[in-house]
Amino acid sequence: MPRSKRRQTLRDVAGNITAPCGFEAAGVRCGIKSRGRDLALIYTLSPACGAGVFTTNRFQAAPVLVTKDRVGRERIHGCIINSGNANACTGRRGHRDALRAADLTAAALGAPRRSILVSSTGVIGEPLPMTKLAAGIKMAVAALGPDGGAHAAEAILTTDTRPKSTALEFDLDGRPVRVGGIAKGSGMIAPSMATMLAFLTTDADISPGLLQSCLLASVERSFHRVTVDGDTSTNDMVLLLANGQAEAGSVTARHGLSRFQAALDRVCTHLAQEIVRDGEGASRFIEVRVEGALSEKDARQIARTIAGSPLVKTAIAGGDPNWGRVLAAAGRAGVRFRPELVDLRLGGVAVVRRGAACSHDESAARAAVSGDEVVLALDLNAGKHEAVIWTCDLTAAYVRINSQYRT
Amino acid sequence: MPRSKRRQTLRDVAGNITAPCGFEAAGVRCGIKSRGRDLALIYTLSPACGAGVFTTNRFQAAPVLVTKDRVGRERIHGCIINSGNANACTGRRGHRDALRAADLTAAALGAPRRSILVSSTGVIGEPLPMTKLAAGIKMAVAALGPDGGAHAAEAILTTDTRPKSTALEFDLDGRPVRVGGIAKGSGMIAPSMATMLAFLTTDADISPGLLQSCLLASVERSFHRVTVDGDTSTNDMVLLLANGQAEAGSVTARHGLSRFQAALDRVCTHLAQEIVRDGEGASRFIEVRVEGALSEKDARQIARTIAGSPLVKTAIAGGDPNWGRVLAAAGRAGVRFRPELVDLRLGGVAVVRRGAACSHDESAARAAVSGDEVVLALDLNAGKHEAVIWTCDLTAAYVRINSQYRT
Repeated sequence: MPRSKRRQTLRDVAGNITAPCGFEAAGVRCGIKSRGRDLALIYTLSPACGAGVFTTNRFQAAPVLVTKDRVGRERIHGCIINSGNANACTGRRGHRDALRAADLTAAALGAPRRSILVSSTGVIGEPLPMTKLAAGIKMAVAALGPDGGAHAAEAILTTDTRPKSTALEFDLDGRPVRVGGIAKGSGMIAPSMATMLAFLTTDADISPGLLQSCLLASVERSFHRVTVDGDTSTNDMVLLLANGQAEAGSVTARHGLSRFQAALDRVCTHLAQEIVRDGEGASRFIEVRVEGALSEKDARQIARTIAGSPLVKTAIAGGDPNWGRVLAAAGRAGVRFRPELVDLRLGGVAVVRRGAACSHDESAARAAVSGDEVVLALDLNAGKHEAVIWTCDLTAAYVRINSQYRT
Repeated sequence: MPRSKRRQTLRDVAGNITAPCGFEAAGVRCGIKSRGRDLALIYTLSPACGAGVFTTNRFQAAPVLVTKDRVGRERIHGCIINSGNANACTGRRGHRDALRAADLTAAALGAPRRSILVSSTGVIGEPLPMTKLAAGIKMAVAALGPDGGAHAAEAILTTDTRPKSTALEFDLDGRPVRVGGIAKGSGMIAPSMATMLAFLTTDADISPGLLQSCLLASVERSFHRVTVDGDTSTNDMVLLLANGQAEAGSVTARHGLSRFQAALDRVCTHLAQEIVRDGEGASRFIEVRVEGALSEKDARQIARTIAGSPLVKTAIAGGDPNWGRVLAAAGRAGVRFRPELVDLRLGGVAVVRRGAACSHDESAARAAVSGDEVVLALDLNAGKHEAVIWTCDLTAAYVRINSQYRT
């Protein structure tokens, strides 16, 4: 690596969840989905502490309940993840199946039973095909290796069109510490979690409490800022395992914390944005920025309402600078503000000043919403707070994908 | 009319806003839209009292501000309504234009200036073409007549595929009292109002205060129960004019009120459901019913979340009984309930009992979500309260209409 890159605080590295020391992974096909890999295993050679953030949906899938119960309490050895079946709304049988998947994995790995986490994504309400899964778990354990991250990244996908993964490192005590991750998204993506799964690993040595607070902070700045369609799922989770295998000293409140947090933020932001870019049927990435609000909460609420508006999202799909829909969405967000103070820019083009249309170059406005990346910037001109939400446009392909998902 | 029909409390009658005595209407083309009628006038020969319900959007169009200022205070002679241009986010000029449209109408009618209400729907942010509008107002006044209601119903439409109108009568003191209405909807339809306009007339003799409370009650049970896409506009309004020209006695809290309220409820419900049936790109009408809730508010919140879910609406567009999406939407509604008690029926088919899939005939479930009318009934089994929301499915045609609206 050239010295100039070496000096940067955060450096991208090859790989993903197996880039940090001591992690192995596998992704195999066991036949739950109609094609492709559908079972992923993440394994750490030495036990890790874990942190997790989970869906707030009242219906929580069996694997969510099992994993929540274990992640903060146990020393973790691995996580088994299937796609193609959510194991949600499956009653007691679903809970037994989730525990059984963990047990089978633990037995095959020779690890303690409660050291294995489980995660599922796919169709709701159908029982897990346990015979296929049991065979798959054996295959996955046999396939484990330091190069298995790419296969794992594939195996967790459902309607995603491509895997999402990243890894980077920073130096602590002159030694590299790494953070890596994989994610899946595509449908049901929304603030407060979605059928979004993200699995993060690090070889940092860090306490479980600090790990959890770092993860919460990163998720707030990344996965909680994206929305594809406002739906949140029964199965979402973001898991982070830290196995302490880096040769650096421990990350503590006084040592290396800001660098670790920055690395985790960047991994999470990268994966969250990748999820939006690969949103179901998405053709454009949209950043909604609300500035000049009286509070960050107000700014976020307005940004989310704009980002969630089907009329805004379809206009942008059509490359139409229909800024009236942006204002109309802002106006119904349930936030008090003075409409007569509001400015709006589409990319660099000011289209509204002080609440009313201002003269602008229509073709420039059109160009601003016709590229791969669109920025909608609303300034309330009332305070100092701001918020950013990332979303994608709403296309006919989204409807096609979701009206035919099970057929 | 046969005696058997005559005995029913409420009877459908021909026509719409001009069915009540003393109302005339017109619908003409003045060239704001690229084709079709785009200017409607409603006129009452003797002054009426008025009631109104308006958008809660922070951005309120100029005609909304002008009409809100007048409707409860003035004796009303008419309302001038244009489609094709919302006169919203148009600043001071927009306000002057709205006042000027009312003034021109008043002058042409020989009515007091403040007796005219204004309403607009269409593209946001462009100034009203006042020369066209002035010429149109003259045409509309010249065209006024007791048979003009159908033309008026056409002239208020934007992306609607058909006019929406209704009228009915009931007897009071042995004399008929009539209530009629026209509406437009299609896009931006949501609870708490939408680019939804409805104009209602009655020849009942009723005080302004009572009229307003009756309208609020009816709107709560009709227009506030529909959603097409969750967007609410800058221009929504429901107006009700009562000119007292029926030969019956006055409607008061002790005389005829329940019959008047029932008539108004039925007119509003009919128009609201028509708006949903003609939702942009809609292929199916969906009734979401939530029962067994601890409060009506909880039931409504869950019903709205289900009705607003793109994943539920696209599944139904595809005739897919994907009930997991219904539960997932209910679970993220922000209402506390016990998932393990929940039942779900698709039409008459029970698919979930006590929070988990129950065995059912898959082809019957598929049939239940493949017709013109779909009922999703969720029972929380916790309390006695319920709520109903009406919506439509989300099709590729919705996206097509809204990505090309201005192009």
